[in-house]
Amino acid sequence: MAQITAAEMERITREEVPYVGQLGVQFESIGDGTAVARIPVASADNLLRPGGTVSGPVMMGLADVVMYACVISRIGLQLMAVTTNLNANFLRRPSPVDILARGRLLKCGRRLAYGEVTIFSDGEEDDPACHVTTTYSLPPLPK
Amino acid sequence: MAQITAAEMERITREEVPYVGQLGVQFESIGDGTAVARIPVASADNLLRPGGTVSGPVMMGLADVVMYACVISRIGLQLMAVTTNLNANFLRRPSPVDILARGRLLKCGRRLAYGEVTIFSDGEEDDPACHVTTTYSLPPLPK
Amino acid sequence: MAQITAAEMERITREEVPYVGQLGVQFESIGDGTAVARIPVASADNLLRPGGTVSGPVMMGLADVVMYACVISRIGLQLMAVTTNLNANFLRRPSPVDILARGRLLKCGRRLAYGEVTIFSDGEEDDPACHVTTTYSLPPLPK
Amino acid sequence: MAQITAAEMERITREEVPYVGQLGVQFESIGDGTAVARIPVASADNLLRPGGTVSGPVMMGLADVVMYACVISRIGLQLMAVTTNLNANFLRRPSPVDILARGRLLKCGRRLAYGEVTIFSDGEEDDPACHVTTTYSLPPLPK
Repeated sequence: MAQITAAEMERITREEVPYVGQLGVQFESIGDGTAVARIPVASADNLLRPGGTVSGPVMMGLADVVMYACVISRIGLQLMAVTTNLNANFLRRPSPVDILARGRLLKCGRRLAYGEVTIFSDGEEDDPACHVTTTYSLPPLPK
Repeated sequence: MAQITAAEMERITREEVPYVGQLGVQFESIGDGTAVARIPVASADNLLRPGGTVSGPVMMGLADVVMYACVISRIGLQLMAVTTNLNANFLRRPSPVDILARGRLLKCGRRLAYGEVTIFSDGEEDDPACHVTTTYSLPPLPK
Repeated sequence: MAQITAAEMERITREEVPYVGQLGVQFESIGDGTAVARIPVASADNLLRPGGTVSGPVMMGLADVVMYACVISRIGLQLMAVTTNLNANFLRRPSPVDILARGRLLKCGRRLAYGEVTIFSDGEEDDPACHVTTTYSLPPLPK
Repeated sequence: MAQITAAEMERITREEVPYVGQLGVQFESIGDGTAVARIPVASADNLLRPGGTVSGPVMMGLADVVMYACVISRIGLQLMAVTTNLNANFLRRPSPVDILARGRLLKCGRRLAYGEVTIFSDGEEDDPACHVTTTYSLPPLPK
């Protein structure tokens, strides 16, 4: 079972990562090591590119918080978990519709968590706009 | 000689990449394949983390526009040059002061450009907060 | 349908990429944009680490030829397709048994192909040893 | 001062990483957090590509041991230091001459070390064939 709810995750995103939170990120589901989030195309149109499509930095910010959700869904709320690596491959320009991100942990050890996030325009999951892999460094456990 | 000025690059950042431009990015210098930019810590404080330090997505956005400046400083203004890969390694938390990014091209071929961007807190270039490598896909040349 | 057979791919690996081919790579299946290959733990034991586990460079070489197989399974034999980026994340030490790699294309455009390869010890696909993403640059099509 | 000599590093490469060691890697210099190594083009010609140029997997293996040398030049011999990420960008085909790799640490913390390795054909350092960034996970210090 996930250690955090979608509503809590939306609050954390707004308050702790406001640069991403301002985009109106909505968490659609959070499982044990998985998360799906949406950016409504209309919610932040002055930050998007002409035509409403999202830019690379928007997708990287979205991927970062989605992987953060995956990590804390597994280990519980740890504000000190920090991204150590984020590798984004941009595969095509997104369409001017809502964008979704689906993340999943591939490994969650004591010190490092690693996973992937696939970003796609709503209705086009088979032809993703961006694929991201991310490593988080986890804080030492209390003794 | 650079194919673009710092002032033109600041305008492009504000208008074409507003998600990054809202951070008040200032280009300090642009050479042939090199660029240095600054985010004043005070300019976007409601988007930064508590304490004023910049978050990972802010650094990735900054790296993306700095490498874009490096590319167009070499090949001239090409709005169709697009990032295909951005790999960010976060090395330490930045201090709550201005943040700088220094980028340089390592290769600029006909189809791909590749370079690195080092991000550091003002006065701490020897102990960088983030190191980024980026690939841009270049539009075909007119015949 | 795949544009190449497992047997042809094994021959290409031995002859064109001998540094990897010497490891005795066996292709178990090749589909349209997918491939699975195996390195028998006994086949190259003087090249492995003490205990028979494979080293990082062995896994990266394996990932590279598996993605090459994925690319040419889709576009046909193109010796001029070249790797432009390979990003490997090492998740745990492999066990001293055969190692397998499962690759799939996530995108295959006119100029770039991109995919992922998951490497795991035989019988442990749910706990991978390594996850790799790779970009190939494709040669221009004949007019 | 470096915590290891070039001669010791060559022995470690041959004995601990034989898949790379068989290429005849020669360490030319090791400093505090820096290392330069060479693969003589004639030393392993049956493993190279037609024409004698080195393949991608050869360059990645070389980069991995050069960064390993950088790490242990700083922290002393730690066989348990392991690569957690290696990101290789291939910029052009190397010429059929000796290949060199120059590595340097960008950060060496308690848990993670990070650095870059530039690979180039002898005499062509300004036009590199490959640029690699690597993260090593460091073993916990004895109490």
